[in-house]
Amino acid sequence: MIGQPPSPSSQLLAIGIDLGATKIASVLVTETGTVLEAHHRPTLPQRGPAAVLDDLAAEVAFLMERALAQGGTLLGVGIGSPGQVNPLEGSVRNAVNLGWQEVFLVREVQARLASPLPIWIEKDTNAAALGEYYWGAGQGCEDFVFLGIGSGLGGGIIAHGDLVRGADGNAAEVGHIALDPQQGRPCACGLRGCVETVVSGPGLVAITQRLLAAGAHPTRLAMVDLDAHAVVQAAAEGDALAQAALDEMAAAFTTLVAYILGLLNPARIVIGGGLGLAVFEPLRAYLERELPHRVLAASYRNLRIVRSQLENPALGAACLVWQARRTHLSKGGDAKGTRDDTIV
Amino acid sequence: MIGQPPSPSSQLLAIGIDLGATKIASVLVTETGTVLEAHHRPTLPQRGPAAVLDDLAAEVAFLMERALAQGGTLLGVGIGSPGQVNPLEGSVRNAVNLGWQEVFLVREVQARLASPLPIWIEKDTNAAALGEYYWGAGQGCEDFVFLGIGSGLGGGIIAHGDLVRGADGNAAEVGHIALDPQQGRPCACGLRGCVETVVSGPGLVAITQRLLAAGAHPTRLAMVDLDAHAVVQAAAEGDALAQAALDEMAAAFTTLVAYILGLLNPARIVIGGGLGLAVFEPLRAYLERELPHRVLAASYRNLRIVRSQLENPALGAACLVWQARRTHLSKGGDAKGTRDDTIV
Repeated sequence: MIGQPPSPSSQLLAIGIDLGATKIASVLVTETGTVLEAHHRPTLPQRGPAAVLDDLAAEVAFLMERALAQGGTLLGVGIGSPGQVNPLEGSVRNAVNLGWQEVFLVREVQARLASPLPIWIEKDTNAAALGEYYWGAGQGCEDFVFLGIGSGLGGGIIAHGDLVRGADGNAAEVGHIALDPQQGRPCACGLRGCVETVVSGPGLVAITQRLLAAGAHPTRLAMVDLDAHAVVQAAAEGDALAQAALDEMAAAFTTLVAYILGLLNPARIVIGGGLGLAVFEPLRAYLERELPHRVLAASYRNLRIVRSQLENPALGAACLVWQARRTHLSKGGDAKGTRDDTIV
Repeated sequence: MIGQPPSPSSQLLAIGIDLGATKIASVLVTETGTVLEAHHRPTLPQRGPAAVLDDLAAEVAFLMERALAQGGTLLGVGIGSPGQVNPLEGSVRNAVNLGWQEVFLVREVQARLASPLPIWIEKDTNAAALGEYYWGAGQGCEDFVFLGIGSGLGGGIIAHGDLVRGADGNAAEVGHIALDPQQGRPCACGLRGCVETVVSGPGLVAITQRLLAAGAHPTRLAMVDLDAHAVVQAAAEGDALAQAALDEMAAAFTTLVAYILGLLNPARIVIGGGLGLAVFEPLRAYLERELPHRVLAASYRNLRIVRSQLENPALGAACLVWQARRTHLSKGGDAKGTRDDTIV
């Protein structure tokens, strides 16, 4: 089939790209989630946006060729990005870890491609939520919230089986609600006391440092070389100070989850991110103990708190393509492609 | 046209009913919001559910006749109810102020009608949000949150132009998130320290009583005959204690609104309810002063905090009919009626 136009009955394919500050992960994937290709390369954002965009476009071009070689029908590209993403204009703003102020990502990548292809972008955690919905811990569930705890705290909301984006595309910015705007720790966003300053790797380390300085708990931890992994490890081995630090993080997370349940009544809370997965069991135990005192039984009774199951974030990005197609089909459009003119 | 079957081109009509603990308000209304009939009668819930259901059905039957007399095509009935409402099974549970444990409202009303008519029900504050969307302060806005402050605190969420109901129909139960589950005041729901115990008429009175007992502020208020109206009035006239009480309520409300902005990024917060409207200006001033310290500028920049504009809650209930029709049409159905078999 190489070089032939794909037949209408050929397999539908999508490219997914997760743009991270450390690496760019990409996949070529079928509608049922079979990964035909998976790559990653270092992002090296210090080279500036143009070099990163060149790499993104080269990756897309390469996977376009692979799709053609497979004889499949490539519907488009989904990209999950950090920062404040505007899906309609295809832009990324204030991506602090990439050093990007404002990049028109969709336009820039499309300008670098030899042939036109629709590209959809979303905030990385929105793409993650969609990935859980299609192929992960949110399968079969029309109302759930994904919460990723890592170097930061992000989320994605699925309601009625679709992403909730909000008026400006900033829904589920759960990390940047200030719990303590006067006394809290300064946050990279410019506010103080954001949930993320407590519920994140750096947050857990900061809590531990404060408890160490106060000397109120016996511990084997020391200020030197303290990282979140060491705290999690110590807590698992019964270290009293590490457990107190983890409980403090869990308490702030519980407050957030209580608001989520009261506002959205999801059927599931999907916890992901490196730290989120590492502390999943103690976090779930804390939530299950505290939530019944914090929310109506009716909002809680059928709730399941589950682990993220999506192994590759690029898979979530690919689901932007399926979701765009599904939304388009439900509005009476044909199977593919008519969105490029609104994006290019 | 009396007694004649309506022509296909005749005006589309809906009946809306707001079932309150004090009164039952009802309207017969056109698709553009013209009110053809508006009634209300006392609920008298102490008579038991059967008597209230008889009254509801009698009101529907009367307005059906009026619709026929108008020569219009009556599409159905929307009912806004207190308590925990399950729109799919048409049931109301734990409606404390009505004294209802479990009533299958749709089935019971339909059984009392001489001819079948589709009936949709929603939580009263969801119906209010929908009413604001069609004919009130949410017009032209696809993403907003309605918050009603009165004897309690309730809400309704519109995202992408539709109600967010949650997995069990309990979304926007904003009043029953416990801010202080250990030390807070007991709430009628069984929890302690719910937002509603602070942000509501009784909440404002309780704060004022505590401040009066502490004697920390000069005031003309006294414990005797204290009600929310007196506190609002005194605050407006510069009473220091009343203003401190109002600020304390506003602080809890701001915490709630900060979570709403971080989670949902609405374009508008619509404030309603008797107390919400009475304290709208000081509340908005407090929010506008505090929110920039609590949420990302990007989630806040385009936000408008506006007054509810829906004068009659029965109008919101009538919008359940228009919304059901719109949702049905967008799924490829015909104009009306095919939902009765799923409800009867």
